[in-house]
Amino acid sequence: MQIAIIGLGRMGMNMARRLLNGGHDVVVWNRSKDKVEQMQAEGATGFTDLADLATHMSTPRALWFMLPAGDATTERIAEVLPHLDRGDLIIDGANAYWRDDAPKAEMLAQHGIHYMDAGVSGGIWGLEKGYCTMVGGNAEDVARVAPALDTLAPPDGWLHCGPVGTGHFVKMVHNGIEYAMMEAYGEGFDLMRNGPFENLDLQAIAALWNRGSVVRSWLLELLDSALQKDADLSSLKGYVEDSGEGRWTVLDSVHHAVPVPVLAQALFRRFESRQDDLFSNKVLAALRNEFGGHAIKAAGDGSEGRK
Amino acid sequence: MQIAIIGLGRMGMNMARRLLNGGHDVVVWNRSKDKVEQMQAEGATGFTDLADLATHMSTPRALWFMLPAGDATTERIAEVLPHLDRGDLIIDGANAYWRDDAPKAEMLAQHGIHYMDAGVSGGIWGLEKGYCTMVGGNAEDVARVAPALDTLAPPDGWLHCGPVGTGHFVKMVHNGIEYAMMEAYGEGFDLMRNGPFENLDLQAIAALWNRGSVVRSWLLELLDSALQKDADLSSLKGYVEDSGEGRWTVLDSVHHAVPVPVLAQALFRRFESRQDDLFSNKVLAALRNEFGGHAIKAAGDGSEGRK
Repeated sequence: MQIAIIGLGRMGMNMARRLLNGGHDVVVWNRSKDKVEQMQAEGATGFTDLADLATHMSTPRALWFMLPAGDATTERIAEVLPHLDRGDLIIDGANAYWRDDAPKAEMLAQHGIHYMDAGVSGGIWGLEKGYCTMVGGNAEDVARVAPALDTLAPPDGWLHCGPVGTGHFVKMVHNGIEYAMMEAYGEGFDLMRNGPFENLDLQAIAALWNRGSVVRSWLLELLDSALQKDADLSSLKGYVEDSGEGRWTVLDSVHHAVPVPVLAQALFRRFESRQDDLFSNKVLAALRNEFGGHAIKAAGDGSEGRK
Repeated sequence: MQIAIIGLGRMGMNMARRLLNGGHDVVVWNRSKDKVEQMQAEGATGFTDLADLATHMSTPRALWFMLPAGDATTERIAEVLPHLDRGDLIIDGANAYWRDDAPKAEMLAQHGIHYMDAGVSGGIWGLEKGYCTMVGGNAEDVARVAPALDTLAPPDGWLHCGPVGTGHFVKMVHNGIEYAMMEAYGEGFDLMRNGPFENLDLQAIAALWNRGSVVRSWLLELLDSALQKDADLSSLKGYVEDSGEGRWTVLDSVHHAVPVPVLAQALFRRFESRQDDLFSNKVLAALRNEFGGHAIKAAGDGSEGRK
């Protein structure tokens, strides 16, 4: 089928490649010319102008947005909208908050444009292994892009989760779980490195656990791979970003009174990882000093210790 | 090689079977006669008397204990000890606390008996797929039982982790991580069931995520399987036992000041799951009533709700 990929970031570019490899008529747009030319060299039809892209495509169009969630996506949708026709379909594949999907769908519906949301997992491995994809929308719209989904995903690797919003919601929960699984491995390996036994071979243990143990997983395979390159992870700082889904997971848990203590804690640990000196700990140190005269360290004292 | 399996529980019996299938000379002991006879029918030499078992075996003996950790293991070791010879080897494959290994090894060393600890993962799937096995002990002792380990484990599926205690320690951390991974899936699926969207197909989502997503794992395959049998898990009560390793993981984290908030929280959630009415919540309800006159429920009021 003909499909446009709007945004050739790490995800969008490889998705375009996988669609090309699957024999689809792939149209691409990117703000920067070099990535467009790169994909043209690989067989896509490329544009740096959304009006040109719309003019080129046959109707009804299918445009899959792979831009950063929020303004970047909203602005480009507004930009292309005047050049679209009733019956065209916009798919938002960004890691967007599902609460923004229904308003977007309603706004587009006023112009006769259909809308679907897609949560896409697989990272840099997706090109080779396929993208596990969760979509939300009307059955007819999903059916229209099914040929592209069949190519993007591994066998049976995409799911129509429900109405608009469910694709991003299920992907959001997926990432919330991912944060906590990563944190679980992180804490366990910390205990093996800094616990009662010295010099345990962490890489050998990660590799071993992937061979028949209960905790085997793809994340543990990636940890094995990372430890093979750097047995002590000494080249890294333990600074961990988050990309929104973990926060939305906790927001939704609060809205619906569903207790998710481990998912929330995993998110909070990421916040902690990005700070050199927590204010909460300053409060504790100050209080211990106030009531017990316990020693305090001056700001900037680099000494540290585990005991 | 000739090896004795002491204790034909769910794990021990299937390990004996896997060793028999691998062509080993398997000697078994169990307190109850029926299981011994069962294994005799399958090719093992069986005993209900440990003295008889010792007399039958050629020296140096290798005895792999698969009894419940603690007294059950300690008492049987004491019972067989007078019938062993210097150079014999005892392997403790129970889910025992690693802190008990060194004292056990020292006690046995006084009698010239060697000791190894083994953490065995794989559950009821081990017979077919092999047992992921972590062992601690001297290199010579490990080498002596390597032929049995090669049979018990999947390819490259066992590891000599280090000195006595490390097998049980690494297995303990494995289970600590396992608790938190299970909790992460539990919370995420709770949010999908009780969050903003109704009637999401949880089984289809579990199955989907195992096809290329970042959270794919063996545990998620098991969840898919459970949801296939009972889409809403309505046949189950959410009552979750623990078998010790999660507790020891948290104890060790406290001893060594290694923060494991997610592993600890996963353990605490299991404690919570086994109580109908938390005393801590009674305290909160009482205080809200004291300071704000907020409504309280009488003990035994079965009404409940999420809002």
